[in-house]
Amino acid sequence: MKPVVDLPGEEGLIVREGEPGIWRYASVLPPVKMRVSHREGLTPVLESKRIGDEISVDLTYKDETRNPTGSFKDRAGAVMLSVASERSVSQITTASSGNAAGAIALYSLLSDVEANIFMYKPSQQKLSQTLSYGANVYIVDTPDEGTVLSLAEKASSELGWTLLNTTAATNPMVSEGYKTVSYELWEEERSPDWISIPVSSGSLLLGVHRGFSELERIGCMNKIPKLLGVQSSGVQPIVEAFDRGRDFVEPSKRADSIATALSLENPGTSGVETLRSIRSSGGAMVAVEDDSLIETTRNLAAKDGIYSEPSGAISLAGTIEAIEAGIIEEGDSVLCLITGGGLKDPSGFEGEGSPSARVIDNSLSSIKERLE
Amino acid sequence: MKPVVDLPGEEGLIVREGEPGIWRYASVLPPVKMRVSHREGLTPVLESKRIGDEISVDLTYKDETRNPTGSFKDRAGAVMLSVASERSVSQITTASSGNAAGAIALYSLLSDVEANIFMYKPSQQKLSQTLSYGANVYIVDTPDEGTVLSLAEKASSELGWTLLNTTAATNPMVSEGYKTVSYELWEEERSPDWISIPVSSGSLLLGVHRGFSELERIGCMNKIPKLLGVQSSGVQPIVEAFDRGRDFVEPSKRADSIATALSLENPGTSGVETLRSIRSSGGAMVAVEDDSLIETTRNLAAKDGIYSEPSGAISLAGTIEAIEAGIIEEGDSVLCLITGGGLKDPSGFEGEGSPSARVIDNSLSSIKERLE
Repeated sequence: MKPVVDLPGEEGLIVREGEPGIWRYASVLPPVKMRVSHREGLTPVLESKRIGDEISVDLTYKDETRNPTGSFKDRAGAVMLSVASERSVSQITTASSGNAAGAIALYSLLSDVEANIFMYKPSQQKLSQTLSYGANVYIVDTPDEGTVLSLAEKASSELGWTLLNTTAATNPMVSEGYKTVSYELWEEERSPDWISIPVSSGSLLLGVHRGFSELERIGCMNKIPKLLGVQSSGVQPIVEAFDRGRDFVEPSKRADSIATALSLENPGTSGVETLRSIRSSGGAMVAVEDDSLIETTRNLAAKDGIYSEPSGAISLAGTIEAIEAGIIEEGDSVLCLITGGGLKDPSGFEGEGSPSARVIDNSLSSIKERLE
Repeated sequence: MKPVVDLPGEEGLIVREGEPGIWRYASVLPPVKMRVSHREGLTPVLESKRIGDEISVDLTYKDETRNPTGSFKDRAGAVMLSVASERSVSQITTASSGNAAGAIALYSLLSDVEANIFMYKPSQQKLSQTLSYGANVYIVDTPDEGTVLSLAEKASSELGWTLLNTTAATNPMVSEGYKTVSYELWEEERSPDWISIPVSSGSLLLGVHRGFSELERIGCMNKIPKLLGVQSSGVQPIVEAFDRGRDFVEPSKRADSIATALSLENPGTSGVETLRSIRSSGGAMVAVEDDSLIETTRNLAAKDGIYSEPSGAISLAGTIEAIEAGIIEEGDSVLCLITGGGLKDPSGFEGEGSPSARVIDNSLSSIKERLE
């Protein structure tokens, strides 16, 4: 990836302390006149209350569900639309299973750009939210996420819309947004041994890696955390390439997982760059089965108090997997990025064994029945 | 209400700047050894992008949807459970339509307290979230919210659970939590002419008023904003008392509104204190019809980019009502508290006239059809 901004020299990084969002790092972000913002970023790092002890690591979470639309995508959305606005773009399009859709719809609205969004099997919650911001939404009836992206590309060239591709390799603004995660961790002086990150095409991981690499070049950090990339075993093209020691990625033949935000069969060039970033960090990749992912999603809420969608909790499920595989060792410090909230996709809390309420009449006896 | 904490003298207010949540104001909060926190509070104030100009006021929003569980209730939850934990409480109970349920479930989990929560017509989203934190949830089959509270009271006395009543008059910890809103506004040097606040029993409004009163007594503020209390016209007992110049509140005979979080027929003593606080601030009360509330909820998202539940957007709907009634004047500065997110209750975006998506096949022609 080509550098987008000129980095300052050693000790030269300016943090705009009054700025309560990602633009506090404007000195290392693309220069724009109008910084579109709804105070995305500066998400809290929360200590694990119970799970860390259970799995014998020093466990923290960076809670990206606290962004304006409830997912990490807002970081990229703010940067992409600020740049699009600078370039006087009037109509944009993108393809998304839901989190990017909500983020791009919001920041389009804030920058007076019309958004045309192609969605792929969205949860009702993500769809309603995206529509609420006034985006034109097309749900494509196809079993294949790649088709949706192709259609968005076709529409953009035929109808004169600007395509906002949300994969890092095709759109450098994406990593520019996500790298703010690393700058926040640096500013809070958090330097865990491992950072665990959900991987679809790998854009978030690439952004985090770019952030740490920049901080190293600027002279602010001398040790980059190891990156753990986590995919669902139902669609794990990059994990397979990693396991086989390849430097290319073959598209997955299937995409079948409860982690709907991570259902991309073909990660393209971003997948290759993801492999490279993980290896250069000394990190690893793991895949997680749906059963274990559902269990982890429920435990994350019930034990540590973070209500997440399965795609967001996969960083914790992958951490547990990596401990069992001997990749992460006892006593290591691990920070999991929780990328999207349970209110956006409560599917981890549905079906067999999920927590349930009891409907009672207005009497104490019906409570006592339950207590017995 | 009796004071809970000893206030510092003039200029003596200590803000713990490193503390990224409400406990930065620990010097004016109940003294506890263990401050339970998931970084609630410090919510952003967002400028209106379009609506302020349309209605000719200087309009901002304090976005309480950015709290850990997605509503302002987290502020009270953190204080209540910190105090409960201090007192070695092991089992608590509360009654809620959903937002308090989620907040109390989360902070109970974080303080190792077992939560038994009685819910009243919750949205599926609020229910799933509350269950996710491991609370025992009872949905009471009754047409009347008061009944649910009575049952919670009965259960608490009979079963030895500690009742966490979330109305300010019966539980001073509630206002202690909500007053942090005012401290945050003071710290950001925001002093609008009006603050518009959704009112059920009035607990949030009472907390905000307490915060400003304290700041005045400490010597930090010399002008308290006027408070606008907003109820739904489907259940507006306090508005009726205000309009009639009464200092008592008669329970509403009906509770019929899309603003489900504001459906309390009988606000009890908190209602009386709400009247007093509003009058002493030089403020006013208004009620809002469901039709206008739905329109406002949709506009808040589509024009200003905040996806809210109807109960949360009612502060904006009330502002518009108050402008039309000549209560708020052109050019006034108005800050609306947006108390809960659209992901928690998307009912404002359902039904007739709501924004909708188009399902298309994988072809450009189906997009062009829509464009024509």
